[in-house]
Order: sequence, then C-alpha cells, then structure tokens
Amino acid sequence: MAHTYKVHYFDIKFIARGEPIRMLLSYGGIPFEDVRVKHEDWPKVKPTTPLGQLPVLEIDGKAIPQSKAICRYLASLVKLDGKDVKENVALDVAIETLLDIQNLTFDSMFISDAVEKEEKLKKLKEATSFYFGKLEEYAKKHNGYIAFERLSWADILFVCVYQLLANVVGKEAVDAYPSLLKVKKNVLAVKNINSWIKNRPALPGYDLKQDL
Amino acid sequence: MAHTYKVHYFDIKFIARGEPIRMLLSYGGIPFEDVRVKHEDWPKVKPTTPLGQLPVLEIDGKAIPQSKAICRYLASLVKLDGKDVKENVALDVAIETLLDIQNLTFDSMFISDAVEKEEKLKKLKEATSFYFGKLEEYAKKHNGYIAFERLSWADILFVCVYQLLANVVGKEAVDAYPSLLKVKKNVLAVKNINSWIKNRPALPGYDLKQDL
Repeated sequence: MAHTYKVHYFDIKFIARGEPIRMLLSYGGIPFEDVRVKHEDWPKVKPTTPLGQLPVLEIDGKAIPQSKAICRYLASLVKLDGKDVKENVALDVAIETLLDIQNLTFDSMFISDAVEKEEKLKKLKEATSFYFGKLEEYAKKHNGYIAFERLSWADILFVCVYQLLANVVGKEAVDAYPSLLKVKKNVLAVKNINSWIKNRPALPGYDLKQDL
Repeated sequence: MAHTYKVHYFDIKFIARGEPIRMLLSYGGIPFEDVRVKHEDWPKVKPTTPLGQLPVLEIDGKAIPQSKAICRYLASLVKLDGKDVKENVALDVAIETLLDIQNLTFDSMFISDAVEKEEKLKKLKEATSFYFGKLEEYAKKHNGYIAFERLSWADILFVCVYQLLANVVGKEAVDAYPSLLKVKKNVLAVKNINSWIKNRPALPGYDLKQDL
C-alpha cells in the first residue's frame, strides 16, 4: 500500500526549510499534500506539532519534526545519500556548510535597525564568498556535483540556498562560481525537479522564477 | 595498521563542540591526540583548517571539518548510530533537538548588555524546560536512553548539553527530569566514558567535576 505524505510548513515568502523536503519528495516521484500554514494560524497549529516547530513531515499520520532529520530520511529513501561511510562524511560536511550559510542568511533577514542590518549583510556577503569558494572547490573536483560525482541531496539543498541568497545578497554574489552554476544546471535538468519548480505554488510576495 | 587521530578544538572554559567528539573516541577506545588551540593562536591556525572552523578531526593527516559530520562519522565507527532507517530518524530528531538547545545556549553566553543577557537567559530557561520536557518523554519511553532502547550518541551529546546548561542556567533547571537523569547515569556508567571524564584535561577556569 502506498504511504500518504504531508509536508507542513509556513507560508513564507522566501526559500527556507520546507523547500528541500518538497524537492526531495518531488525528485523521488512521491506524491505529497503540501500544507502551508499561515502566520495567523500558527498559534493554533504549534501545540499540535511534536516539537512546537515546522517543518513537519507526516507519513501515514505519524509526524516527524526537525528539517534535517526529515531530509536525511527522505534522502536515504530516494537514494540521494552516500553509498558508504566515506561518501556520507563528504555529504555531511557539504550539508552542514550549506546549513551554516542558510542560518547566517536567516540571521540577517529579520533585523529592523538599519545600521545593524547593513553590518549583518556585509558579514553575510563575506561569509558567502568564503563558503561558496570552498563549495566551488568541491563542485569542481566532482564535475558539477558537491559531495561526490553524482547527484546528492547536497546539490538540491545548494539550489535552495542559492535562491535564498540570490534574493538576500543579490545574484552577482552567488553567480561568480562556474562549477556551482553547473551544480544548479545539473539539478534543474532533473525532470522531476524541473517539473516541481515549474509548477510549485506561489510564495506570497515572491516571484519564484526570479533568482534561479 | 592503526589509524592516528587528532582532535583540534579551542581551549575554552565550557563544554562545547569538541567534547562529544572526544567522548565518542573515548567510548570506542580509540586513542587520539587532544590538541587544544589557544585563543591567541587561532589567527595562525584558522587558515590551516578546511573551513576556517574548529573542531577538526584529523585521521592519518586528513582533516575533516564540521562537528556534526565528525560525530556522525565516529558514531557509525563505534556503533552508536541506529541499526536501520527508523532508528536513524529517531536518532536524528533527538540530535537536532539537542543541538537546537546547545545553539540557544551559545547564543545567550556572549552578550555584554546586562538587560539583553537577562532576557536571553529567561528565554533559554523556557526553551530548556520545553525541550527537556520533550526529551524526558523520549527517555522515559526508552527506559533511560533518548533515541532508542540502548546507548546512542544522542545520550553522549545529552550529557555534554546537560553540563553546558547546568553551568549556564543552573543545575535545578536541568535536574527536574528523572528519566534524563537516568540517561546521564547510564552514560557515566560506561567504563570508557567514565574513565575519560575522570581524566580529561582541565578547562581554563572551569571545574569539570562541577555540574555533572
């Protein structure tokens, strides 16, 4: 019997922690209900989640919290993890580095003080340059894939982080890395992912075609 | 031939990202060189690391960055990971939750403004109460182990996070959870871990026996 999958995540206007989950499910051709929780409904929904957080992946009614736990589970399900310990270390290093950049980006997004925001954005640009430079080395070594010489969920996460950053620090800051552009191209060339990206629901106030 | 292991981490006065690595190696009876980098030496050491960060685990001269990648590698090496996909999801959820608390704790530690610090500590106490409450449910269900009914690296990470938090928010805030105290007892009863804890090098200005 086929399992039923529901992805619960906020209805927010940038690429965040829900999107890699939806992309992994799409990659695997696994149908899912895409539940978008509106800001005003969150206080009502929060106590129904396992850890008071989103995203949550519901499989046959059983709720799994923690975006990384969900992604790692789905990556093993759709075979986008490593085939042995050595590959998994390389994958984990890439994933954690991408998440470091993602977290730095989130940190810079919700600051109201203009001077402080400017300073955070400056630091974020420096960090992007440093970490994208390192990831570029990995992608060059693996011919357009980040963790090893075939698609992994690091490449999918990269495309999410790329689009988030392009939106926050600008495309010129993320487009200076030829092997990382090849990663993006390789991911977008996957039929199931391409189809998801073309048809994914709009985010409020953000053009999803932009920045990619 | 036996491999050579070196753990590189800062010489800091609280339980942080280096300690779970040292405890996993100790658990597995794997000898390692314990390199503590002093604050004043960091600018010199930083460019020699793969990602400008510590900890780094060096195996036969090859450097692995990213604490979580290192821990996950060692956990699989010493068999403190899950035996199947289902166990690994439970383990990942527990690990990510412990790391959420750890990060919140780090966030509250380096604030100079007294009012802001007070506020952060209040939020940290609330978060500790919420997350420790959830972890207590897991530990109760698994009879003194967090992820499943035997030792995993979540239990070792828990003891590190417990000691960090006891130091920052006080022992009464972390000692209110009987099944989590059982987790601590179970971890400290492991001969290799007990021996590491008894003999581990002093941290500057922090009594390592305290808070445990």
